[in-house]
Amino acid sequence: MSAVYPLAERGTRATVVEIGDVEIGGRELVLIAGPCSVESEEQLRAAALAARAAGALVLRGGAFKPRTSPYAFQGLGKEGLALLRAVGDEVGLPVVTEALEPRQVPLVAEYADAIQIGSRNMHVAPLLRAAGASGRPVLLKRGMSATLEEFLMSAEYILSEGNYDVILCERGVRTFSDFSRNTLDLAIVPAVKKISHLPILVDPSHGTGSREKVAPLSRASAAVGADGLMIEVHHAPNTALSDGPQSITPEMFAELVRDLKQIAPVIGRSL
Amino acid sequence: MSAVYPLAERGTRATVVEIGDVEIGGRELVLIAGPCSVESEEQLRAAALAARAAGALVLRGGAFKPRTSPYAFQGLGKEGLALLRAVGDEVGLPVVTEALEPRQVPLVAEYADAIQIGSRNMHVAPLLRAAGASGRPVLLKRGMSATLEEFLMSAEYILSEGNYDVILCERGVRTFSDFSRNTLDLAIVPAVKKISHLPILVDPSHGTGSREKVAPLSRASAAVGADGLMIEVHHAPNTALSDGPQSITPEMFAELVRDLKQIAPVIGRSL
Amino acid sequence: MSAVYPLAERGTRATVVEIGDVEIGGRELVLIAGPCSVESEEQLRAAALAARAAGALVLRGGAFKPRTSPYAFQGLGKEGLALLRAVGDEVGLPVVTEALEPRQVPLVAEYADAIQIGSRNMHVAPLLRAAGASGRPVLLKRGMSATLEEFLMSAEYILSEGNYDVILCERGVRTFSDFSRNTLDLAIVPAVKKISHLPILVDPSHGTGSREKVAPLSRASAAVGADGLMIEVHHAPNTALSDGPQSITPEMFAELVRDLKQIAPVIGRSL
Amino acid sequence: MSAVYPLAERGTRATVVEIGDVEIGGRELVLIAGPCSVESEEQLRAAALAARAAGALVLRGGAFKPRTSPYAFQGLGKEGLALLRAVGDEVGLPVVTEALEPRQVPLVAEYADAIQIGSRNMHVAPLLRAAGASGRPVLLKRGMSATLEEFLMSAEYILSEGNYDVILCERGVRTFSDFSRNTLDLAIVPAVKKISHLPILVDPSHGTGSREKVAPLSRASAAVGADGLMIEVHHAPNTALSDGPQSITPEMFAELVRDLKQIAPVIGRSL
Repeated sequence: MSAVYPLAERGTRATVVEIGDVEIGGRELVLIAGPCSVESEEQLRAAALAARAAGALVLRGGAFKPRTSPYAFQGLGKEGLALLRAVGDEVGLPVVTEALEPRQVPLVAEYADAIQIGSRNMHVAPLLRAAGASGRPVLLKRGMSATLEEFLMSAEYILSEGNYDVILCERGVRTFSDFSRNTLDLAIVPAVKKISHLPILVDPSHGTGSREKVAPLSRASAAVGADGLMIEVHHAPNTALSDGPQSITPEMFAELVRDLKQIAPVIGRSL
Repeated sequence: MSAVYPLAERGTRATVVEIGDVEIGGRELVLIAGPCSVESEEQLRAAALAARAAGALVLRGGAFKPRTSPYAFQGLGKEGLALLRAVGDEVGLPVVTEALEPRQVPLVAEYADAIQIGSRNMHVAPLLRAAGASGRPVLLKRGMSATLEEFLMSAEYILSEGNYDVILCERGVRTFSDFSRNTLDLAIVPAVKKISHLPILVDPSHGTGSREKVAPLSRASAAVGADGLMIEVHHAPNTALSDGPQSITPEMFAELVRDLKQIAPVIGRSL
Repeated sequence: MSAVYPLAERGTRATVVEIGDVEIGGRELVLIAGPCSVESEEQLRAAALAARAAGALVLRGGAFKPRTSPYAFQGLGKEGLALLRAVGDEVGLPVVTEALEPRQVPLVAEYADAIQIGSRNMHVAPLLRAAGASGRPVLLKRGMSATLEEFLMSAEYILSEGNYDVILCERGVRTFSDFSRNTLDLAIVPAVKKISHLPILVDPSHGTGSREKVAPLSRASAAVGADGLMIEVHHAPNTALSDGPQSITPEMFAELVRDLKQIAPVIGRSL
Repeated sequence: MSAVYPLAERGTRATVVEIGDVEIGGRELVLIAGPCSVESEEQLRAAALAARAAGALVLRGGAFKPRTSPYAFQGLGKEGLALLRAVGDEVGLPVVTEALEPRQVPLVAEYADAIQIGSRNMHVAPLLRAAGASGRPVLLKRGMSATLEEFLMSAEYILSEGNYDVILCERGVRTFSDFSRNTLDLAIVPAVKKISHLPILVDPSHGTGSREKVAPLSRASAAVGADGLMIEVHHAPNTALSDGPQSITPEMFAELVRDLKQIAPVIGRSL
């Protein structure tokens, strides 16, 4: 165990992780899109159809929502998981959703193609271990003030359970910024590529916190070399039960994808 | 529910929380001391006796340890809880220790007089709820990059379970500092006192990360008006299995307490 | 004066600033390149020829260098200015260089086509005023921990001297990052575009501090919508007297420009 | 020159710097007090008399004010310097005030007993050099995001001009805090004491930005071992032309001094 990160460190080739039949870390620039929270079948279907039509390959949507306030909407729970699975199957997209505690992991693993570990939980070892033992790919989001060392050590918790299907995701760090909810730290993409074989996505929705910044930072994320993007799309963002201000409309998403198709080849990718 | 923090907001008087028969938030400046991790009965007894002799009123010690690396010592687990209880009873000090996940909470509540929620878990709602439902007082440490709003909202998760015995604890925030592990943010003490009735402690051990800074920052924490201090004490810090560099010796602790006895009256407290 | 930023705020159209005959803020994605410090005529000519050949439109090079240590190389001073002017004229590129104090401004204005105000000086009102009064365009770099409000207020100091030729430049902010010298904050580009008419560049050399990150972050900067890039190029970075670790070679620069030419059209620009 | 900080590094004893006949870095806990800006003779005299009566040994007051906005009050300039000198002589207190640019230094040195270099200028080498050459003691405030290394290197700029009368001053760093203007970083006091012979003060007024936090953080600053405090006092803070929200009244100052007199002996000082 002489390596700093025995399992996450760069070897001879990059790891490709499959969510359903979608490869992350390969030639394709993968778009994961969908609403912040699953709110209803109609809402989810509208987002899923629009996302698929524009070119998204994976559907996202929260059933268990980590919220700052105990008085805010906490997600539909198991009902949300079932809706996500049903709509994903209907539109033909694999689905990813978050688990908030170890005992939720088997349930989430039953319904979803990949398990998300959110920023608030990046440091939570029991959850990382449970996700590692789930048999599902794990999408690990960077903590709000996590160093690269801590981020990769959290990946090690998952990898050391024998689960090698780990996808990293940058989503912005906390700074003094007065113009964005978080500061999207795109330099972590080449930093990860240099020392680890794991794929890395960027989430410009949480990374900026405002709708009009999602498209420019998505273009930047593609250009910096991310393996994919995770974007919140909602057909009526102003009525969303969570993250409305940072959700983009299907039309904005479609326009963004047209731009990304032009950027992808510059970094040797297709979309 | 017109208040921002319906349950944590300041009312007509400050809340006094009891750990065992020790009052926190009252006239006494309460010292909580002990090793970072419970390593053995001998190690724990040595720290406990020294802490008690110097004036500590509560014994701390980790049985389940949250660690950045999965390859680092993770604590003695249930065996550590049993040792903590036994040594606490032997020396006559109530004990506080950390729970890392919801399902550990009943076990920890069985052995400990108060349950600690660590910085890495400050945002973890299921754990906050479980601690809230435990029937034990909860010592809630501030997250590494938590705002005051987020800190109090995490307290609301516990309070809204009907558990009003919440003690806050400042332990430093993450900054660019090149001379301390974290930046101890003492201004949060008067800020909390202004808007909340909850007591607040300071942990200068994690807040500085280096032994020689613990005493000066402890004095500062007492002077700023904290209701108590939480300090890592180890009889042989250089051989400690965790946090050795920031643990002080029993002799350093005793000397510190002599200083704190002089500062306490300035802010209307006894020790 | 009801506006927050009476002079920097967005009006009906974007401002185009000319450095020599190069327009910044127009259709062209402008590349400013050259060594961190002017070290010798040979070094500067090599960088200038390579930069021009690859497509750079403006030559940069420091004559007065702001350094953390008083014992580090402080620049060639007036001799450096003369070399910069001579080589710029020889290769046909306008030049930009930094002034460190008000009384240097007239001298720098005599030799350079634009005056740079560095990050360390963003808050220094007398220097901002002197640059404003110089009659030269001013390239204003964001301070290491400046908010957007402070950045635009510093621009106001220049603008309120009657000098409307102000170019902003993002160069990274200070955070807890363990993998980059600064954290490049690309979200400021759309944020500036939304509220101000001033053009904004990005400096990925200082923004990352490491050679291998300059190209990916340059691509990201172009894709996010910056009006141009400012990049440190040195023919032998390992022997550079300052900023060697973040300087790229002429070959790396040429390869980067090929990528940027493909990204520029996506955001409606040419290169 | 093998030392990291050839002149600032710790030798066999601490440096004592004299402002007028007041020793800083000796046994006395020195209080520097006065208004943020010199506004009028009456205002300054009221603050000076109150400060002296309560126990302050040095008078502060800004004549040249560094402001974020060019449209804010910029200080009375030379008139302010003259008022400061006159009132200081009248009440028998030496005075310290800020210089904003190199060419102001001789003028400030003519009127003041010590020259302050503000946070915004900590990195500005020409100003540091000019202050170093002034023949006056220099009070150097830490930059808003300065590391300890950068802080001491700025001191080296002054020291290397042959001026050994340098006093450091912590005044808070910029973080994500939602409850204080800056985050007062008291751990820098023992950090400086460990590696440097220079005295260090704390400025809890700028360090917190709010009146009700000044007293608690002043007590903490004394307890942590600072050589003195620098506090903004104004007889009518709500009408102050600058920094009103963080200025305390003479009554609050007098009450604070009573507390500090009790804390000083704990750290082996008198007041």
